[in-house]
Amino acid sequence: MTDSVKYLLDESRIPKAWYNLQADLPKPLPPVLHPGTHKPVGPDDLAPLFPMALIQQEVTTEREVEIPGPVRDVYRQWRVTPLFRARRLEKALQTPARIYYKYEGVSPAGSHKPNTAVAQAFYNKEAGVKRLSTETGAGQWGSSLAFAGALFGLEVQVFMVRVSYDQKPYRRALMETYGARCTPSPSKETASGRAILAQRADHPGSLGIAISEAVEVAAQRDDTKYALGSVLNHVLLHQTVIGLEAIEQMALADDSPDVIVGCTGGGSNFAGIVFPFLGQQLRGGKKMRIVAIEPAACPSLTRGTYAYDFGDTGHLTPLTKMHTLGSTFTPPGFHAGGLRYHGMAPMVSHLKELGLIEARAYHQTKVFEAGVTFARAEGIVPAPEANHAVKGAIDEAIRCREEGRSQAILFNLCGHGHFDMQAYIDYFGGKLKDLDYDEGELAMALAGLPAVAA
Amino acid sequence: MTDSVKYLLDESRIPKAWYNLQADLPKPLPPVLHPGTHKPVGPDDLAPLFPMALIQQEVTTEREVEIPGPVRDVYRQWRVTPLFRARRLEKALQTPARIYYKYEGVSPAGSHKPNTAVAQAFYNKEAGVKRLSTETGAGQWGSSLAFAGALFGLEVQVFMVRVSYDQKPYRRALMETYGARCTPSPSKETASGRAILAQRADHPGSLGIAISEAVEVAAQRDDTKYALGSVLNHVLLHQTVIGLEAIEQMALADDSPDVIVGCTGGGSNFAGIVFPFLGQQLRGGKKMRIVAIEPAACPSLTRGTYAYDFGDTGHLTPLTKMHTLGSTFTPPGFHAGGLRYHGMAPMVSHLKELGLIEARAYHQTKVFEAGVTFARAEGIVPAPEANHAVKGAIDEAIRCREEGRSQAILFNLCGHGHFDMQAYIDYFGGKLKDLDYDEGELAMALAGLPAVAA
Repeated sequence: MTDSVKYLLDESRIPKAWYNLQADLPKPLPPVLHPGTHKPVGPDDLAPLFPMALIQQEVTTEREVEIPGPVRDVYRQWRVTPLFRARRLEKALQTPARIYYKYEGVSPAGSHKPNTAVAQAFYNKEAGVKRLSTETGAGQWGSSLAFAGALFGLEVQVFMVRVSYDQKPYRRALMETYGARCTPSPSKETASGRAILAQRADHPGSLGIAISEAVEVAAQRDDTKYALGSVLNHVLLHQTVIGLEAIEQMALADDSPDVIVGCTGGGSNFAGIVFPFLGQQLRGGKKMRIVAIEPAACPSLTRGTYAYDFGDTGHLTPLTKMHTLGSTFTPPGFHAGGLRYHGMAPMVSHLKELGLIEARAYHQTKVFEAGVTFARAEGIVPAPEANHAVKGAIDEAIRCREEGRSQAILFNLCGHGHFDMQAYIDYFGGKLKDLDYDEGELAMALAGLPAVAA
Repeated sequence: MTDSVKYLLDESRIPKAWYNLQADLPKPLPPVLHPGTHKPVGPDDLAPLFPMALIQQEVTTEREVEIPGPVRDVYRQWRVTPLFRARRLEKALQTPARIYYKYEGVSPAGSHKPNTAVAQAFYNKEAGVKRLSTETGAGQWGSSLAFAGALFGLEVQVFMVRVSYDQKPYRRALMETYGARCTPSPSKETASGRAILAQRADHPGSLGIAISEAVEVAAQRDDTKYALGSVLNHVLLHQTVIGLEAIEQMALADDSPDVIVGCTGGGSNFAGIVFPFLGQQLRGGKKMRIVAIEPAACPSLTRGTYAYDFGDTGHLTPLTKMHTLGSTFTPPGFHAGGLRYHGMAPMVSHLKELGLIEARAYHQTKVFEAGVTFARAEGIVPAPEANHAVKGAIDEAIRCREEGRSQAILFNLCGHGHFDMQAYIDYFGGKLKDLDYDEGELAMALAGLPAVAA
């Protein structure tokens, strides 16, 4: 048996600085706008929500941002994460491609999310904050912030989309085990939540509503700030440890990627693996194909409009320019809850507009078929979100087989599926359907985009 | 923040040989007896169930047994597993003790079980076997063998205790994702199963019954062998990679254990961490306290009889001398399903008789309280089984605090609790009860022990 190979680095090789793609962008990001004035926001506008250190990271164009010692100390628990050459998968696919994957499921919360949760908890603690509020859909982010809050002695309140709160008691239990308080959203604890419940008492909730509730709580209390698990520049920045490590590990393997694949919901795990490699390319390095994979049921990059939009349903957030399906868009209830967001990270959207990345959308049954193929070859059961990247990588490997080319394909396996086995049960039971969004609803949501004079 | 510390080794330091405690025992193990003749069994008696390589490992007294290359190749996916100094837990407990834990939850199946599953799959494949049958309770072992079977191209059939099959659909889904067939036990597929169902059509099953079914299937078919996840000498042998690595990692930490703690069901994870250290002690090395922790609801080491008994309810297995509660004993349905076995590994039982190890039994609410304390300090949510070891280590650390002694405590964190969150939900909801076994049933089960002239 030619076995799969692990490339590991000594913990002294955990990056000492995050990589900031803003330093190497050929064209700067469009500014974030105030929702009332439509003028660019300043640091003070964001101060009720975030500590100043994170606001600075949101806008800095410095190429390197130092990772504080205490954050690196916590990273050491599971970082450097392994990078694998998936030889067993290559054999199963009979492909001449060399398939590599970076595995972020080894973190205590089971995904890449703690990379930023730990950093955000640290900066908030430093700023004297006592309490963090956030939202979660599938629960990957909520449990990661709960974990980080436990380590830094911060109270954490998580507004969890009600349908997930009811359907995923295990994720909720994980948050509570870490000591966080988990509230089903929409709730009666906020004006945003009460307004929704007044319209419909049994509302199933959405990520956009949960964000409104978490933002409202943070804005009202001096000792409380808000934390977001994706989309924002500083969140993507924190995730670049993934790609920075992968660059060294690919060098250990004496190889370099021709194609990089990541799944995209808000964009953070994709940015984490891609940005450091893309930075090298933009500074004159090797040209690669970079492929973002998204669910066909919530296809912001492939079917959304590139426009200014709100990050939440209650319209409490600033406006950012991004690929969006409209802040009132509600995707159907497919299994990759972490990818059910109406917008895309402004930075990832910008790259798509610049032609630096490709995007592709898949339906979920083929995505789970790929996940099962991967699990049987490599032994790891991916999260439903990660299955999108797996499917993307497998399709690239099959293309290599058909073209007779031996390319190096690197993808990010952003989390394990231990808390999502119901999705596999549904898949094996033939109950998984290839859901599509409602075209009429998309048109209505896009018609409601705020009118911003560009 | 003084953070917890990880001690990792390069994969070149994965042991090249398993350590066999039989080489250093002050007194040899009592022989295994044929259930009909009560004479010691020979290799041919076991040949219908196991390949010859494993039968030889069962009886060898060689100190080192070489680990085959392909087994080490698979081990590399997750080994060397990390050893942590739990400084955050020490701080939470305000103890002068130095607490270390070896973490086996990083394996693809989430526990130490793949250490032997991979080895058993390898030797069976080498011997031309096509199919493995086994039993599982909580599902840790069944999913590990399913994983190993997928890698080596072996069909796997798992008889899963019916009550777990119904209550733990996620574990079953994990086995099926790896391609195994999972059958609720008692089933109609075997004579043993049909006999039980004839008595009671809705029988909830037990580990002893599931073993009978798996053994029966293996004995009937030439292309099928049986695999066991604990108890037997060769299984314990394979687990010694845990302790062998820990010896090197403790040396890296410039420390050595004064106390070693492990939880015991069948005894395999306990043996894995303990035997290599105990071997050093028996060869003249440092004297340590070694503490086995078991559930008060199934206390084979602390309340069982040391006697010859069957490994299964259907009495198809040979007789081994061990601490047993009787092969017909049914423990109450507490949450650590992996510790619900009537017997104890003969090797671990032997050590108890020789006075080389201590044993202690805990009720489950205190065990979960310890697990939550650990999760909030160290970020890892332990399996219910592992919580027993956590509780044992915490109690030793509190003793150190009370005595003002700075001892080094090492324990094995044998698996994560991702598939067992219902137990945490019950704990937080106040639904976890401190169950006790039925004294009358224990007396009856012990009265039924086979009469073996010792």
